[in-house]
Order: sequence, then C-alpha cells, then structure tokens
Amino acid sequence: MDGGRLTLGREESRHLLRVHRARPGTRFEAVDGDGNTYSCVLESAEDGRAIALVERRERDRGELAADLHLIVGISEPGAAESVVEHAVPLGVRVLDFAACERSGRPALGRARLERLCRLARSGIKQSRRSRLPVIRSSGSLTVALSVAPGGVRLAADPAGGPMPDEWDRTTQPSVTLTVGPPGGFTHAELECLRGAGFCFISLGPSRLTSQTAALALLVVCRNSLFAHDLWSI
Amino acid sequence: MDGGRLTLGREESRHLLRVHRARPGTRFEAVDGDGNTYSCVLESAEDGRAIALVERRERDRGELAADLHLIVGISEPGAAESVVEHAVPLGVRVLDFAACERSGRPALGRARLERLCRLARSGIKQSRRSRLPVIRSSGSLTVALSVAPGGVRLAADPAGGPMPDEWDRTTQPSVTLTVGPPGGFTHAELECLRGAGFCFISLGPSRLTSQTAALALLVVCRNSLFAHDLWSI
Repeated sequence: MDGGRLTLGREESRHLLRVHRARPGTRFEAVDGDGNTYSCVLESAEDGRAIALVERRERDRGELAADLHLIVGISEPGAAESVVEHAVPLGVRVLDFAACERSGRPALGRARLERLCRLARSGIKQSRRSRLPVIRSSGSLTVALSVAPGGVRLAADPAGGPMPDEWDRTTQPSVTLTVGPPGGFTHAELECLRGAGFCFISLGPSRLTSQTAALALLVVCRNSLFAHDLWSI
Repeated sequence: MDGGRLTLGREESRHLLRVHRARPGTRFEAVDGDGNTYSCVLESAEDGRAIALVERRERDRGELAADLHLIVGISEPGAAESVVEHAVPLGVRVLDFAACERSGRPALGRARLERLCRLARSGIKQSRRSRLPVIRSSGSLTVALSVAPGGVRLAADPAGGPMPDEWDRTTQPSVTLTVGPPGGFTHAELECLRGAGFCFISLGPSRLTSQTAALALLVVCRNSLFAHDLWSI
C-alpha cells in the first residue's frame, strides 16, 4: 500500500491476471488478512506484478468484534482439516491444535500446519472475512494456555453445566474455548483448566467427537456472547 | 426381542462374535435405532446368531426431546457427508438433502443415500444416541416441505434477523430447519418458505457454506430451544 495504490504479491498477481484475466480498468477486491478490504481498479501489470488504485478501504468486514481463540486437542489428522473448514468461516481468530495427554501424537509438524494455513486462507476468501486466523500447534495444553488471552474461558466437558446466561459483553473482548482430544482431558488437565479460570460447559446428551464439539462450542459461544455483533452488521 | 431375550441380526452378530470376540457371559450394549438401548449378556451363539439376555432397557438415551428435521440444499457430494458426520451426533432426526433450484443437481441417488445411511448408523453408535436418523433426498424444496412436520420453522438467510428469544418450549416438540444450496434460495423458494411459516435467521457477518450453515443453525436451535433438555440429562 503506497498512497492510494496497492501492489499485489506475485502469487495474488498471477491469480488475478491469469485466472481472472483482469485487464487495466478491471475492478476487484483485495483483502490483506489484517482486517482491511480494498475495493480496487487494476491500473497496470508490470513484470507480473499487479498495481491497483484503491477506491475504498473497509475495516473488519465479516469479522466478529471478539477475539475468538480455540484450543482443540489433537485427534486423527483429517479432523483438524474439518475443524479449519468450519471454524474459519465461523470467525475463529486463533486455532491451536494442542497435543493433549490423550492425543497420542506430538504437535503438528510444519508441513501439516502449512496445509491448514492454506485451507484457512481459502476459507477467509470464501467466507468474505478480512482477518487471516493464526493456526498453531502447541506441544501440551499448558503451553496452549500460556499463550491464550484473558477474558471469558469456556471448556467443553460432558460433566459441565449450561452456558451461562449473562456475560458482561462490553468488557470481554476475548474468549478462549477449549475441547479435549478423543477420550477427553485427563484429570490433571481438567485441574489445570479449572486453575486457569475455565467454566465447564456441557454440549448435550450425546457424545461428540472433538471436531463436532469444537464447532458446537464455537457456535454456542458466538451466539450467546455476541448475538448483538452477529446481527448488527 | 422375545421375553427378556434378544436375537441380533446376522451382521451385528458377526461383529459382536468376530470383532469383539464375545463369549457366553460377555456383557454388551445393543441399540435398536428406535430409541431402545439394551444392556445385555451374551447367552448363546448358534448358526452365527447371537442370543442375549436383556438385563435393562433404557429409552431415548442420548436423544433430545425434540424432533429435529433439517433440510439442506444439495451442493457438492462431499458436503453431504460432512453434514451427516456432524449433524447426526448433534441430534438430527430427519436429514433431507433437497435438490433446490440453485443446486444444479438432481436428488441424491440410492447408492449415495445408502452410503450416507451407513455414516449415520456409525454416527449414532459413536455418539451414544439411540434413534437412527432418517436420511432422504427430495427432488425440490416444495417436496421437502410437504413431508416436514409442523412446529417451529427456521430458515438460515443472510438477510434474516436474530434468533427469537422466546419460544413456547412445551408445545413445540418439532422443529424444521432449512439451509439453501450454494448461491442460496431463489426468490421463489424464499416466498415458498415464507408462505410455509418459516422465520428467517441470520448466522452472522461472514458468508457460510451450506454445510457450515446447516451445523450452525442446528447448534443455535438446540441451544436456544432445548437448553433445558440439553442440560437436564
């Protein structure tokens, strides 16, 4: 971004020029993943780099006002993709696949994280969000909690209670949600969550997989805490 | 079921005897898909058919009190599997993949429906539900609506409003939820839904795929309408 002009990266330029066959004068939208959506007109394409005139900038299009941080116990590899596929359109800001005691696997490696990041990039475009979620993988629940924000903290637990009715919406801009791996959290992990101020929420009478529980907790939370946000835009 | 005895079908008998290596005296649980869960002890296995003594019968284990009927506009084939995978553990009773005007495909064929039914069978076992959901595919939204129950009717729509705060929970045992195909419902379909008494609900500021919207609407509905159910068991 320079004055009212924007130079696209090589990959995005190629996509715009080759796949969408944009020509000088073509209108398009660009999202920087940091909350900005630019309404642009292509000005020139030199050396394969698209340069565009920005007509309008919009902040936080498609975003909830809240910082939703979701920690999911690692299960089988396909499950992480299913979580990314649904959680990104639903507004997650940080998604941490934590190697919990019953995960039976170490933290996700670089190749797998890169694949999940590509899915997340594609997810924000499809869902018309403007902030690219951070996808990470912590080596343990303790490590995951050490980088989670303050604010409301909810953990899915079959022995938990109902979703609290009232939250002080104005003073809680961050929410951390957590769901265990298959087999659930161990006693020690539950104690660790209790010590970290988590409230335990039951998601109903049936047994949910980690990925279904993660999506259910995310939806219940955004609906309960941010109904005003969801429907004021 | 005959007196206090139960004879398992051939496939289930084989699974119990070969995979789980049950012997006379082995305890196991059997679910009939019609709301009954039997706590059994294997008595004998003649001609590959397991015969068991029923010690206890439980009704509607893992079930919500409500009859949740979900109509989803057909999109690409993998999406239907993702919906079954998450919606069955979340308590759906009828799942109708409707060929809407923008689906660009006819109703699902028999082979695909059988595959989805197998996923649903496996889903109720994993989620410890006791009622096998019906999976069907209607040739149009009108056909789908003609077999949907009365009661609360909610449709996901980006131009809709918030989830109503209050429902008369005692008199609304059935709920019909509907989500359009990619591209959404046509004007004629929206009019048809309006005429059938549907209330239009927005699911937030981002654009959701049909499968994510279906799961979000299901979770919002079970949480909003049946919080008492969800958390009293």
